Amino acid sequence: MTGEAVDTVRVALGERGYDILIGPGLLERVGEEIAARLPKVRAAVVTDENVAARHLSTMTAGLENSGIAATPIVLAPGEKTKSFAALQEVVDKVLAARLERGDAVIALGGGVIGDLAGFAAGIIRRGMNFVQVPTSLLAQVDSSVGGKTGINTAHGKNLVGVFQQPRLVLADVNVLDTLPEREFRAGYAEVAKYGLIDRPDFFAFLEKNWRAVFSGGSERTYAIAESCRAKADVVARDEFETGDRALLNLGHTFGHALEAATAYDGSRLVHGEGVAVGMALAHRFSARMNLCSPDDAQRVEAHLAAVGLPWRISDIPGELPGAEGMLDYIAQDKKVKRGALTFILTRGIGQSFIARDVPASEVLAFLREQLEG
Amino acid sequence: MTGEAVDTVRVALGERGYDILIGPGLLERVGEEIAARLPKVRAAVVTDENVAARHLSTMTAGLENSGIAATPIVLAPGEKTKSFAALQEVVDKVLAARLERGDAVIALGGGVIGDLAGFAAGIIRRGMNFVQVPTSLLAQVDSSVGGKTGINTAHGKNLVGVFQQPRLVLADVNVLDTLPEREFRAGYAEVAKYGLIDRPDFFAFLEKNWRAVFSGGSERTYAIAESCRAKADVVARDEFETGDRALLNLGHTFGHALEAATAYDGSRLVHGEGVAVGMALAHRFSARMNLCSPDDAQRVEAHLAAVGLPWRISDIPGELPGAEGMLDYIAQDKKVKRGALTFILTRGIGQSFIARDVPASEVLAFLREQLEG
Ligand SMILES: NC(=O)c1ccc[n+]([C@@H]2O[C@H](COP(=O)([O-])OP(=O)(O)OC[C@H]3O[C@@H](n4cnc5c(N)ncnc54)[C@H](O)[C@@H]3O)[C@@H](O)[C@H]2O)c1
Ligand SMILES: NC(=O)c1ccc[n+]([C@@H]2O[C@H](COP(=O)([O-])OP(=O)(O)OC[C@H]3O[C@@H](n4cnc5c(N)ncnc54)[C@H](O)[C@@H]3O)[C@@H](O)[C@H]2O)c1
Ligand SMILES: [Zn+2]
Ligand SMILES: [Zn+2]
Repeated sequence: MTGEAVDTVRVALGERGYDILIGPGLLERVGEEIAARLPKVRAAVVTDENVAARHLSTMTAGLENSGIAATPIVLAPGEKTKSFAALQEVVDKVLAARLERGDAVIALGGGVIGDLAGFAAGIIRRGMNFVQVPTSLLAQVDSSVGGKTGINTAHGKNLVGVFQQPRLVLADVNVLDTLPEREFRAGYAEVAKYGLIDRPDFFAFLEKNWRAVFSGGSERTYAIAESCRAKADVVARDEFETGDRALLNLGHTFGHALEAATAYDGSRLVHGEGVAVGMALAHRFSARMNLCSPDDAQRVEAHLAAVGLPWRISDIPGELPGAEGMLDYIAQDKKVKRGALTFILTRGIGQSFIARDVPASEVLAFLREQLEG
Repeated sequence: MTGEAVDTVRVALGERGYDILIGPGLLERVGEEIAARLPKVRAAVVTDENVAARHLSTMTAGLENSGIAATPIVLAPGEKTKSFAALQEVVDKVLAARLERGDAVIALGGGVIGDLAGFAAGIIRRGMNFVQVPTSLLAQVDSSVGGKTGINTAHGKNLVGVFQQPRLVLADVNVLDTLPEREFRAGYAEVAKYGLIDRPDFFAFLEKNWRAVFSGGSERTYAIAESCRAKADVVARDEFETGDRALLNLGHTFGHALEAATAYDGSRLVHGEGVAVGMALAHRFSARMNLCSPDDAQRVEAHLAAVGLPWRISDIPGELPGAEGMLDYIAQDKKVKRGALTFILTRGIGQSFIARDVPASEVLAFLREQLEG
């Protein structure tokens, strides 16, 4: 324990509401925090090999100290683990441990583990308690908050899952010290995203303090807590993603298309990097449509470049399809409703909005400039 | 169409509320009823081979007349279809048909199809529209109402699933004419159950009119509608089964133990038959505990015998374990909370209640009398 403050963010969802605790040293306290909220609970801890090697023993020791018996379920790391096969494995092991509806599934890991374990918790006995202990920056600021869980199928990513809110999220900012730097940087794209959606002051804070966020300490805790507050606000307004929650897709329509165009090859592009390029493109496209000033687009590009994130399509290594091919990927994105093109565009830093019926011809012309210009 | 009236039962669950229509000739009207509630919807129809052979073309013709394009998904009949493999098959075919969140999965079949298709609808794109067109008596009066869905695993029945309320339930009483008589009779046990839980007048109606219910016509429609009203009341009070809904398990603790003891061999005992014996035992046990009069227990036994349902353990063909063995099956039942024995007992016809902490020794002594006496 460093003595630094722990911040608490409340996700205001009535009966399904919960706390997100953000700070250093929380991994040791997982047991007491859970015991305080879920007395007499038993648990299964779902994690991956990378995280297990570094952090599992710390957590299980803390659980034991609080009298919580925990069954570890360790899976292979990586996106492939978000599959029916892994889901069935988790379900089977939780049932084999004879856990009941009032017991808890704890996710210790990045977004892959959180999405998979949350889905399992949502369907075992039609819903068990679920606790998120996110260990990647992306998971701490994004995937662990809001209750979206799921797996991938041959038809696309995240097409199968449930809304399953956690009972508690514990984000220990120190566990990020063992995260590969590229993963930290990719997660940072989602942090910047919250500033760009509707928190201009937060974006200005990041422009000034990003080095401190990367190196740890109170700026990191603040940036993660502020991100959680931003996401919690949107989720409280639109739990089941029927409206406003789409704002969280800023940068994601272009980003997902780029991920698909690089065949989800993480050596070329990881999700957060796609989002970084996507956010830069969303701002540049907004400027081209005279919605925001070119200076704002430039500010976004400059910040992404400063932290070492890709921001141009040409920053992505290897071959990419042409403008027409990219448009095909965009039109296949599942957020595209019955053929109409929906984008998150912006009127300036922190002034994003949902634009429905964006003309495909404009997008195509823009992509031509970006790819061929 | 016979000109007979269609009855409507509302399941009062606020935003998630829906209508159950009960009557003759509804299969032909599925298209218009869905189109009235879900405009521009596309659909997948999940069914089994037995039901498809008899009723699928009637329904798809009706859907087409209302402009609803439907993809049929026909599965093998039987409890084995409530598996991860079949779930994955349904998910895959619905996604391959490119159905979206606003489109519908329609279950056309018995409880097996309803439970499986409802689970799939609950997880595809984190929740699609779901419509129940139940074709067995059990499904019309029980499984299609209330939103419990799920599959079986090696660890037990119905251990994995979600709560997914349908948008509409259409119970065509005429489709029951093709149901094997044994299945109809087994489903009738659940009809009688509603009388025994809290509707003494309904039980008296059944004692007098069961022949008409079996042969069809307005008594059948009334009995099914009254059953749906009974279940809808309980579900509205306790959607997520944290309290009162347990009353619906009258006869089921003994019944499930008998099903397990006969290794779920349908040639020996189908679910509703187990429930029939279980209800008789629950009344006899209540009489033994001086909770209700022996006359009430006798009335239940006499009615079950009259309709041709088994009511004594000795009515079940083949070997059964002894009293100790049966108690083991009871204690393993998932409704048993942390070791305490919970039963639905009764103070008389239509006066059931949830009894927690029933002494295992009393149950054992009772089982000895039943099995060895
Ligand atoms: N549910 C949601 O709302 C939501 C939102 C955004 C993203 N997601 C999902 O999240 C997933 C991506 O999450 P991610 O980026 O965390 O991926 P991830 O879980 O694969 O983690 C990235 C890598 O970092 C490793 N790792 C994690 N924590 C570590 C630590 N502390 N030390 C060392 N290594 C560590 C992991 O083993 C993995 O190799 C995607 O599947 C995406 O779909 C979900
Ligand atoms: N979700 C719930 O709340 C709930 C409640 C009770 C039972 N259930 C589940 O329901 C299942 C049992 O339901 P079931 O008894 O309907 O079983 P089922 O679906 O297997 O149907 C019984 C048999 O009748 C056939 N059939 C159905 N309709 C027919 C028709 N009109 N004509 C000819 N054949 C027809 C089926 O093909 C099958 O062979 C179990 O899996 C049980 O767990 C669920
Ligand atoms: Zn993202
Ligand atoms: Zn039943």
